[in-house]
Amino acid sequence: MQEDLIEKLIEQFRSLPGVGYKTAQRYAFSIIEGKKERATNFANAILEAKEKIGFCKVCGNFTDQDVCTICEKRNHKVICVVAEPKDILSMEKVKTYDGVYHVLFGTISPLERRGPNDIKIKELLSRVQEDNVEEVIMATNPDVEGDATAMYIAKLLKPLGVKVSRLAQGVSMGSDLEYADEVTLSKALEDRKQL
Amino acid sequence: MQEDLIEKLIEQFRSLPGVGYKTAQRYAFSIIEGKKERATNFANAILEAKEKIGFCKVCGNFTDQDVCTICEKRNHKVICVVAEPKDILSMEKVKTYDGVYHVLFGTISPLERRGPNDIKIKELLSRVQEDNVEEVIMATNPDVEGDATAMYIAKLLKPLGVKVSRLAQGVSMGSDLEYADEVTLSKALEDRKQL
Repeated sequence: MQEDLIEKLIEQFRSLPGVGYKTAQRYAFSIIEGKKERATNFANAILEAKEKIGFCKVCGNFTDQDVCTICEKRNHKVICVVAEPKDILSMEKVKTYDGVYHVLFGTISPLERRGPNDIKIKELLSRVQEDNVEEVIMATNPDVEGDATAMYIAKLLKPLGVKVSRLAQGVSMGSDLEYADEVTLSKALEDRKQL
Repeated sequence: MQEDLIEKLIEQFRSLPGVGYKTAQRYAFSIIEGKKERATNFANAILEAKEKIGFCKVCGNFTDQDVCTICEKRNHKVICVVAEPKDILSMEKVKTYDGVYHVLFGTISPLERRGPNDIKIKELLSRVQEDNVEEVIMATNPDVEGDATAMYIAKLLKPLGVKVSRLAQGVSMGSDLEYADEVTLSKALEDRKQL
């Protein structure tokens, strides 16, 4: 009985990315041996995050409101396009960026049978036209799919008379935006080149 | 606001042993992007484990009852002495062991000002006398403090006419019981030597 509860907790920790049995066991024991208050806070943080955090109806960012704080306060003339909501957190480390975002929720990927209609490209085009956007910065991951998606969207946007740019080669090829450091991201934003 | 909730969740994951900011962020996003059911199960596993799991009043093992299942069902003539409740889970991988356990809740450590009266040695002596125990297996960690504690307890037990043994040198010196593999633990249990 008692082992079931521990094993259940270990199983949960194992479901996290990159966590094996031994690591999950260490995490589980740290919860069981820790204070009750900490376990309560931990559980509440998980529940609250999952319950309250949805997607901003304008840009697709994580938010617990209808519209996220970035869309509420910032310059809508510049849109930075990212593949996933978590990429916004990475980009936000560049304190100098004052524009808004647009989450595609994926990239065009023939291998995974994801075409242009399966990601939020239509929504981006509407936003660009409705808000008289001046510049769209493509910040999809610097890999094959990210590049292809950026090129595809750039082609659609150019006829609308909007400036389209891409993060500069500061971000190294084949890597993942999630793991880029602030300096690299800052340099890449600064050196963005027109497509 | 939405970033506060994410940051709060990341902070919780950072409190786990050996988890840095990037890793905590990955864990947090995997929760936020996952299914709601999974988040609920995760939170419940944490709460349930912390709420229901206490210590067995006989041996000190984790349990959600007064007395743990090992104490209820197994041979009380052999006691395996460990430093922490989690060491029981490691020992239990050795499927051939049929005895019970005794958790000391620490080892004698002059450096950390923990003397013989600060760990459950008195309770072990009472159990040995009351249950007419035939053998006590010392399974404290194979390091300086674990060895010293084992020797100290062996000296106290011998006058009671009980056989006292120690896990054999199958467990490598300076390591930690928590990370020993099953084969090593099995060998160590098999080759235990009398003190």
